[in-house]
Amino acid sequence: MSAYVFPARTTTAEIELGTTLQPKFGPDGLIPCITQDVHTGEVLMFAFMNAESLAHTLKTKKATYWSRSRNKLWLKGEESGNVQHVRELRTDCDQDVLLLKVEQAGTANAACHNGYKSCFYRKLGDFEDGALKLQFTAERLFDPATVYKKKEGGTRPVRKVRGFGSWYRL
Amino acid sequence: MSAYVFPARTTTAEIELGTTLQPKFGPDGLIPCITQDVHTGEVLMFAFMNAESLAHTLKTKKATYWSRSRNKLWLKGEESGNVQHVRELRTDCDQDVLLLKVEQAGTANAACHNGYKSCFYRKLGDFEDGALKLQFTAERLFDPATVYKKKEGGTRPVRKVRGFGSWYRL
Repeated sequence: MSAYVFPARTTTAEIELGTTLQPKFGPDGLIPCITQDVHTGEVLMFAFMNAESLAHTLKTKKATYWSRSRNKLWLKGEESGNVQHVRELRTDCDQDVLLLKVEQAGTANAACHNGYKSCFYRKLGDFEDGALKLQFTAERLFDPATVYKKKEGGTRPVRKVRGFGSWYRL
Repeated sequence: MSAYVFPARTTTAEIELGTTLQPKFGPDGLIPCITQDVHTGEVLMFAFMNAESLAHTLKTKKATYWSRSRNKLWLKGEESGNVQHVRELRTDCDQDVLLLKVEQAGTANAACHNGYKSCFYRKLGDFEDGALKLQFTAERLFDPATVYKKKEGGTRPVRKVRGFGSWYRL
């Protein structure tokens, strides 16, 4: 049993129109989390939390997710410095999704590991076009190779990829 | 095999920094989708799409999700009139999440089945307070009982619930 316990789910009425946070963690123990810039409303990223990361977020007011790929607590910005200070936490009607409104800190003010402010840096160019081509909508704010290389034993090996400049990481 | 086929997933480099939409549908055939008001940036809702609903969204430019509870295509607003006209479709770095920017139509201009503009109508009042109390941040824009009752054979039975006014639906 998790050491981090949130109020139990009760009735649909209480969950949807009540005033107690009763987050629904899925069978995998996770709840989806949307993170938005508190000032501009820009959606910065989407990740998951487990009970421990939600508790850590509430305690520290720093966005803390659960990394599914690394299977560990993920204090956002721990490595890159791009910490997210949580100004507001919302939940949706059936309390199975969270929404954080954050102040993105760090010199780059970027949430994405690819160096963009938001992970949503591409939009579909033409809905009618079967080619489904994406257009970039933002400029990179930091060089991932430099930022993540700082730390020994980083989680991602750096590898140059032809055609994507010198600092793409696989 | 689905009749709705999107470009196959290729390399990490192409997925993350390329220009072809290569959405990742999970083992259940679904991809998470965040929907945002194109004008205000307010996050309206969070739902899932399968390949068919994404294809339908692209073709009609009306947000179409996959209802997990009803196990069917869910043209948003079909019943309530609160259709979402898609103005922009984005994807995130690893293309396993979609972001729609929509113009919310309908007289009520509301995305939530509980009658609110956004499903995220409650925020946590006090991070330090172990009671985890939520505060309402919005007013109801429509009466769900009236809106959804219109149609015979609606998907949700109407039932009055003590303490939640006369138009809460379970």
